[in-house]
Amino acid sequence: MIVVLDRDIARADIDRLTEDLGAAGLSAKLSGNGDPWMLVAAEQVPGRVRQWVRELPGVSRVVDVPGKFRLSSRDFQPESSTVTLDNGLTIGGTGFVVAAGPCAVESAELLSATADSVRAAGAEVLRGGAYKPRTSPYSFQGLGPAGADLLDQERKRSGLPVVTEVVDPGDVELLADRADMLQVGTRNMQNFALLSEVGRSGKPVLLKRGFAATIEEWLFAAEYVLSTGNTQVVLCERGIRSYDPSTRFTLDVSAVPVVKALSHLPVIIDPSHSSGRRDLVKPLALAAAAVGADGLLVDVHPESAAALCDGDQALSPEEFTDLMASLRRVLAAVDRTLARPCEPLRAREA
Amino acid sequence: MIVVLDRDIARADIDRLTEDLGAAGLSAKLSGNGDPWMLVAAEQVPGRVRQWVRELPGVSRVVDVPGKFRLSSRDFQPESSTVTLDNGLTIGGTGFVVAAGPCAVESAELLSATADSVRAAGAEVLRGGAYKPRTSPYSFQGLGPAGADLLDQERKRSGLPVVTEVVDPGDVELLADRADMLQVGTRNMQNFALLSEVGRSGKPVLLKRGFAATIEEWLFAAEYVLSTGNTQVVLCERGIRSYDPSTRFTLDVSAVPVVKALSHLPVIIDPSHSSGRRDLVKPLALAAAAVGADGLLVDVHPESAAALCDGDQALSPEEFTDLMASLRRVLAAVDRTLARPCEPLRAREA
Amino acid sequence: MIVVLDRDIARADIDRLTEDLGAAGLSAKLSGNGDPWMLVAAEQVPGRVRQWVRELPGVSRVVDVPGKFRLSSRDFQPESSTVTLDNGLTIGGTGFVVAAGPCAVESAELLSATADSVRAAGAEVLRGGAYKPRTSPYSFQGLGPAGADLLDQERKRSGLPVVTEVVDPGDVELLADRADMLQVGTRNMQNFALLSEVGRSGKPVLLKRGFAATIEEWLFAAEYVLSTGNTQVVLCERGIRSYDPSTRFTLDVSAVPVVKALSHLPVIIDPSHSSGRRDLVKPLALAAAAVGADGLLVDVHPESAAALCDGDQALSPEEFTDLMASLRRVLAAVDRTLARPCEPLRAREA
Amino acid sequence: MIVVLDRDIARADIDRLTEDLGAAGLSAKLSGNGDPWMLVAAEQVPGRVRQWVRELPGVSRVVDVPGKFRLSSRDFQPESSTVTLDNGLTIGGTGFVVAAGPCAVESAELLSATADSVRAAGAEVLRGGAYKPRTSPYSFQGLGPAGADLLDQERKRSGLPVVTEVVDPGDVELLADRADMLQVGTRNMQNFALLSEVGRSGKPVLLKRGFAATIEEWLFAAEYVLSTGNTQVVLCERGIRSYDPSTRFTLDVSAVPVVKALSHLPVIIDPSHSSGRRDLVKPLALAAAAVGADGLLVDVHPESAAALCDGDQALSPEEFTDLMASLRRVLAAVDRTLARPCEPLRAREA
Repeated sequence: MIVVLDRDIARADIDRLTEDLGAAGLSAKLSGNGDPWMLVAAEQVPGRVRQWVRELPGVSRVVDVPGKFRLSSRDFQPESSTVTLDNGLTIGGTGFVVAAGPCAVESAELLSATADSVRAAGAEVLRGGAYKPRTSPYSFQGLGPAGADLLDQERKRSGLPVVTEVVDPGDVELLADRADMLQVGTRNMQNFALLSEVGRSGKPVLLKRGFAATIEEWLFAAEYVLSTGNTQVVLCERGIRSYDPSTRFTLDVSAVPVVKALSHLPVIIDPSHSSGRRDLVKPLALAAAAVGADGLLVDVHPESAAALCDGDQALSPEEFTDLMASLRRVLAAVDRTLARPCEPLRAREA
Repeated sequence: MIVVLDRDIARADIDRLTEDLGAAGLSAKLSGNGDPWMLVAAEQVPGRVRQWVRELPGVSRVVDVPGKFRLSSRDFQPESSTVTLDNGLTIGGTGFVVAAGPCAVESAELLSATADSVRAAGAEVLRGGAYKPRTSPYSFQGLGPAGADLLDQERKRSGLPVVTEVVDPGDVELLADRADMLQVGTRNMQNFALLSEVGRSGKPVLLKRGFAATIEEWLFAAEYVLSTGNTQVVLCERGIRSYDPSTRFTLDVSAVPVVKALSHLPVIIDPSHSSGRRDLVKPLALAAAAVGADGLLVDVHPESAAALCDGDQALSPEEFTDLMASLRRVLAAVDRTLARPCEPLRAREA
Repeated sequence: MIVVLDRDIARADIDRLTEDLGAAGLSAKLSGNGDPWMLVAAEQVPGRVRQWVRELPGVSRVVDVPGKFRLSSRDFQPESSTVTLDNGLTIGGTGFVVAAGPCAVESAELLSATADSVRAAGAEVLRGGAYKPRTSPYSFQGLGPAGADLLDQERKRSGLPVVTEVVDPGDVELLADRADMLQVGTRNMQNFALLSEVGRSGKPVLLKRGFAATIEEWLFAAEYVLSTGNTQVVLCERGIRSYDPSTRFTLDVSAVPVVKALSHLPVIIDPSHSSGRRDLVKPLALAAAAVGADGLLVDVHPESAAALCDGDQALSPEEFTDLMASLRRVLAAVDRTLARPCEPLRAREA
Repeated sequence: MIVVLDRDIARADIDRLTEDLGAAGLSAKLSGNGDPWMLVAAEQVPGRVRQWVRELPGVSRVVDVPGKFRLSSRDFQPESSTVTLDNGLTIGGTGFVVAAGPCAVESAELLSATADSVRAAGAEVLRGGAYKPRTSPYSFQGLGPAGADLLDQERKRSGLPVVTEVVDPGDVELLADRADMLQVGTRNMQNFALLSEVGRSGKPVLLKRGFAATIEEWLFAAEYVLSTGNTQVVLCERGIRSYDPSTRFTLDVSAVPVVKALSHLPVIIDPSHSSGRRDLVKPLALAAAAVGADGLLVDVHPESAAALCDGDQALSPEEFTDLMASLRRVLAAVDRTLARPCEPLRAREA
């Protein structure tokens, strides 16, 4: 049972309400980061109890969530949710959002060149990693804080919002100041300390699916963020581990309609990391559009042969431009268009 | 090394050629079912040997195939191959072929009703199983020969070519007389005795991917058919086994561009068996069209709640019609159209 | 519901009984190959119906099987079953049976040399393939009928019972005359035509687990054999497909206690094909003994570097002798010993 | 290339050495937490360069590591390494170490009762979680700091060393003061921030395999710890994700000999979390001993039906005692015994 509170409820009223529920045997606790928002009871409750709670002062509505999930569930929120970045770009509506850029931030020049080329092709978000979780401690780990500063400079220069990965709870604050959206990577999907910390930052969160996570585990990871009161969550399918060595991972396109049946959260697809092969990025991107995803995350690098990270999968700017042209046609066939930031917001930013 | 022979070569010349090659240490053996066609040597050979072979009498051309695959490889045949059914319908060209129908043949009435409705919606092949490989010996195993007769009657009545599964080498002859295309199912992909037998039948073969087969194993299974001399092979991706219980299998859409990079064979997708969920069939079908597949295999049943086999995944005729309308739009966006049989052939048949 | 009939029941009485059950709405059908044995009803039935059936003439007992499995289930037969070969060797009792030999039969000399060395080390069954299911049609496929003849000669010469794989229903008769036990390989576990045919042969069957089969699917495959009336089934775990390339397959030792909780059938382990690595065979063989398996299937080849099939995993006779010495110690620690054929039978055979 | 330095080398000499190497184009960087220890170059270098480095002042030895791994590799350290806890108990020698206890710490009484019973049965390490990484944010997450205090009290009371899981880099210091060994759980195996932090703590580390990690990824995770200078790493196989729902995970016993061929690190097995089934713990524990593991991690709970976490897999004290009796026999068969702490150390501690 989720008890949604009046927006203007006083702290004292919340405490009294929690006490009343406790006296009735309900372990409801406040969800969210200080913002009076909602109480989540540990278990489902009978209808007559819900009726009683509904009439307590300060309660706006009471929602029964029959399945395993709560805040991420369509039973809790039937309409699809959207996540809006600072420049007004909305993820999860009829618009389709393409985030593109280098796997790792390498230099200001390369970042600007990539940003300009992907924007020209129709991307509206710049992706780039300052902190790279690498399998080997001897691989390039990203530029760290210097990379974050480059991202910050680039978003100011280009006006493109930036999404970047965070790998340590201790880095959340630094990155929250320098990026528009925080990515939790596949290897950290069940790093619950990190999920809570990005949740509390209040920033939009891009939550990649663990490469061996079930959809249930993925939605529970989203619940860790949502239960901090941060509702700005976008899911990203990026391939799961299978036995076939043809591709680095197996892109699970079915995950999109499966998630959408269970949850109101937006879902995008990463065709670059799932396949690990440049030649597969375009067909998988078109499949993503056709299957109902809300966007893409694409590796683009002006000189992929020299990339410090995952160059085999990065598109050249020319290949990306070609992909976007084909993508527009498939999107039109499913009654969608590329998302554009809200113009007034965009003007203000400029 | 593959030695393609002159079409009009005499048997005696073949024997002499084989002998000459053997004397040179090459274990070339005739591929194909009696039809003088080609010799396949067990190993790659140096360029000077190929040159020598090329000039032997009766040799049309000599092909070096550097990878693991031979007859299925794009190195052997760079242009994409096509498979043409008796009514002139071509699988693997610019046309996109939809085969639809009930999982299992149940009665003449149901089969005719389904055939009429799927044809009206744009399907050009009727699918239906007379022999069903079922996990449990206590499940409905199909009508057997009676089901095959129903398929034969229905293709004569409706003019729709029929594809049906064969599970036993001993049934190949019976089914080859009653169907237009023989399907080898996922559980039999490495049933090498069956592959050889369907190959020798000379009928077009629909080869489903084993649910835990690598793409390499799948192409080797195709080689078993091709090496009998039967070049009429269409591959079908139908989902692979993963750890996620959300769907029955995980549809591997990447398999389509991966196969097309390695092989000239057409590839279609089965969104029904991969997901096992009616609500996923349409989005997965659209993804199949976008990713570059050459067609679909779809379960349709007029009364799916009463279906004797896999009713949970069968579309109603109305749902199928809706799918086809959306499919036409996505196909147009990737410059394809629904395939149509060759009209003169069709006329002749009628 | 399973209705076990009197051993001496007349055919007419069976027919009458089937009719009576049919009149009561029960679709019971005779299981077994001509031998009056049992009727298996498609569904569970209420207790009062079982009571009524129990009292019909010709009925010996009625068993209710609550789970999915029937003839393989411990609910049907609580005591562990055993399979006895012609020389009296019993698989599934307190004895632990080791079958060893070359992956493929290559020559009479090699087979005899291997048989003598594995017998000297304590193996009591000779394994060897005359028909090899190979991923590629261009790999060595076994000697076929000539290989089967070699096995037959060798079992007569050495007195060791022989287990060999059958891949085509059409070969069952030939191999049943030349071997003591028929193996259904991992790629054919759901080749239902083959399962029925080996069942009908009446020979002991070694049923390998499909490399991506669930335990449920494996037991259902056993049901296909058992429902022909052939109760001589031994299961063999041989590794399942996973994402880790370190080993060819992942040996699932848990399968042994999982199967033993569900079923009365004996289970052995193949440490050679699961790992594909010679250095892992011994530790995995010891783990098999410790986890409760009833035996082993081990590749041994006197000159593994020159083996025509799977040489990387074959032990030398010296390595096998070393394995057996360690195995005896672990078996003693779990109160088991190496199985020995029944002496009188053995004498009679000689 | 790994450059091992003289133990008494001065900081200035290290800096000069690094500079010299840098001038020669080698990106060697200091490994370890302040303790002058070794320089690890990013790449392999030719023999003449190694020779030159070997003669630089302050260099003790130079090791070429041909494979992917460095500090964890048997090429770097051919002899098996051991990890010794504060009480002198050694993991990785001929002794076999059993760590047992409740999944989660619940109360002082329960912890003491469990500690006493598992010690009486032969366990020499107490396991118990104060911080539990749970899939759902609504599940019991452990007692946190209070649980850590209970563990600290219990180890002082009983003298049993304690291993406990750490899930947040921010908790490492608190837990390092209250436990003898820090566990990194399966969901955090690639939480590189956490690996570095536990490495820097200098405490012995128990590194569980990610449930979908390759052995290569697992050893790279160990490299993250080792490259901080902390050599006290024990690996723990705890089951990998497969498609079969019979067990929670599939225990990969082959991982033990595979790791031991590549690495000098000790490896133990967790039969409780891999199977998730109480009835499988004993057979899997015996298989672990037979396959060559160095120890076990076993869930034991006096009242498993009431356990707050994973009660289905916890053994009762009686079942654990029975397991240990059987284990002793299998260990004897492979020439091992249960490990005992070093007596003088133990006395000193008391």
